[in-house]
Amino acid sequence: MSIDSVAIIGLGLLGGSIGLAVAEHLPGVQTRGFDADPEVRSRASDRALVGEVCDDIVDAVRGADLVILCVPVGAMGMAASAMKPGLADHAIVSDVGSSKQGVAQELERVLPGHTVIPAHPVAGTEQSGPDAGFASLFHQRWCILTPPDGCDHARLAELRGFWEALGSTVDIMDAAHHDLVLAVTSHIPHLIAYTIVGTASDLEEVTRSEVIKYSAGGFRDFTRIAASDPTMWRDVFLSNRDAVLEMLGRFSEDLTALQRAIRRGDGDALHDLFTRTRAIRRSIIEQGQDDARPDFGRGDHE
Amino acid sequence: MSIDSVAIIGLGLLGGSIGLAVAEHLPGVQTRGFDADPEVRSRASDRALVGEVCDDIVDAVRGADLVILCVPVGAMGMAASAMKPGLADHAIVSDVGSSKQGVAQELERVLPGHTVIPAHPVAGTEQSGPDAGFASLFHQRWCILTPPDGCDHARLAELRGFWEALGSTVDIMDAAHHDLVLAVTSHIPHLIAYTIVGTASDLEEVTRSEVIKYSAGGFRDFTRIAASDPTMWRDVFLSNRDAVLEMLGRFSEDLTALQRAIRRGDGDALHDLFTRTRAIRRSIIEQGQDDARPDFGRGDHE
Repeated sequence: MSIDSVAIIGLGLLGGSIGLAVAEHLPGVQTRGFDADPEVRSRASDRALVGEVCDDIVDAVRGADLVILCVPVGAMGMAASAMKPGLADHAIVSDVGSSKQGVAQELERVLPGHTVIPAHPVAGTEQSGPDAGFASLFHQRWCILTPPDGCDHARLAELRGFWEALGSTVDIMDAAHHDLVLAVTSHIPHLIAYTIVGTASDLEEVTRSEVIKYSAGGFRDFTRIAASDPTMWRDVFLSNRDAVLEMLGRFSEDLTALQRAIRRGDGDALHDLFTRTRAIRRSIIEQGQDDARPDFGRGDHE
Repeated sequence: MSIDSVAIIGLGLLGGSIGLAVAEHLPGVQTRGFDADPEVRSRASDRALVGEVCDDIVDAVRGADLVILCVPVGAMGMAASAMKPGLADHAIVSDVGSSKQGVAQELERVLPGHTVIPAHPVAGTEQSGPDAGFASLFHQRWCILTPPDGCDHARLAELRGFWEALGSTVDIMDAAHHDLVLAVTSHIPHLIAYTIVGTASDLEEVTRSEVIKYSAGGFRDFTRIAASDPTMWRDVFLSNRDAVLEMLGRFSEDLTALQRAIRRGDGDALHDLFTRTRAIRRSIIEQGQDDARPDFGRGDHE
């Protein structure tokens, strides 16, 4: 691998975790970082998220072999434009955005002639900001690369090697297919979680205090992902609109069918679905993508 | 408290946990248990979930001061009928069902003249069966009692004392209000989780293996509650039909509004909702109803 220096633009949960992971797993690789928010830069310095925090985005990317944009997908184009004067000709430009077609188009528009290889590490928590990152965020998590047609194989291999060094398993995928898969496994779950938490807080018959008190019945699981960063998620839904609307349509049809089964008292239809859904959970645990302990290991189960 | 003996009917997650919690917190109280499934009875004996496992429901309840039905809400009436010949006149009959109006009506129909005080400990995990129970399940969890009009205050105080001894905080609520509150905080979240997991497993464009691989993007949180006991949940939806359909209607309206915002590119509407929903998460954590660590403490965040 010939990536000796990495520039990280945006020092929140993802950017900070990349910096810390590089320090741990690739100690010979230099890191520089930038964030548009001075307070974030200050916290990033305190926590040593990167080797050097720069006050200017152009300085941060200057000479870097790899530049990773860790900003909301709606801000990718602007960040790319701003850093362009410092960008080395040989640099790989990548990102960590949760939608890929829109980001790819935007980066190629702003940075023609540069090597752009969009990436999406499927990892995160509900926390955000410079205090949220940790070095093991990518351990045993998938990182999806969506190289454009005609992408140089050697450059792709370098980026793959980088993510594998951080503990990820890399998958290569077409950007459009990525956006469809992630609409199902990530975007729609977030949208639904935000919706039900919103519905619950708007009720008149049930107080917010009751919702909070009795959240252990299931609701609290939804509040975790509904606490994720609002700007990041707004941009994801706007950027991946078509796939999200398509998958949302399927979900709504299925929900309407269940609603009908409940209204008609069709217990068999309910039982059939509720039995099928257990198998997926088992597979997710077998493949190490979730914690097998009850309640994800929350609390003090003896 | 004058509850010296407890009969537990149904020795799954809830029944087994009550037996273990009584042994830990109320060692002077005798427990007997019954389950319709001989294999469950055998495991219950092995794990000593209750002091004595009976092969006959009538023997299990004979002389008990408190009888707790821990069976799916659709089986409450049948269990109550079957145990009736052994039921002491002075016994309090209670349960742990997740819906309360239907259970109350059924128990009062089958056991006229008996003291029936329905209960709902808002606690559980996605596991079920006699191996799933543990003594601390009710620690710092709410237990809602829905006494009927004219319920004897002394008997209600006894049942409250029992649950408090197991580590719960008790709330008293009207059964109809309970069903509305729990429709929001538990039943609808389960229904939505079952639906999205079903939708994801039925797709043709996205393989099941992809859904599993990339589930860490949010989907896996839903699979936890969609792994809950199918029979229990079928019965909850049939039993609490009106409140579930009412709340489902509100959720669907809200989801349609978000869908419209995405289609029209209305980022402000999305951002507003996504910001509002963070506050509820904070309150849930402050009130000790969930784990504040990122990802519920899953994994190895250093």
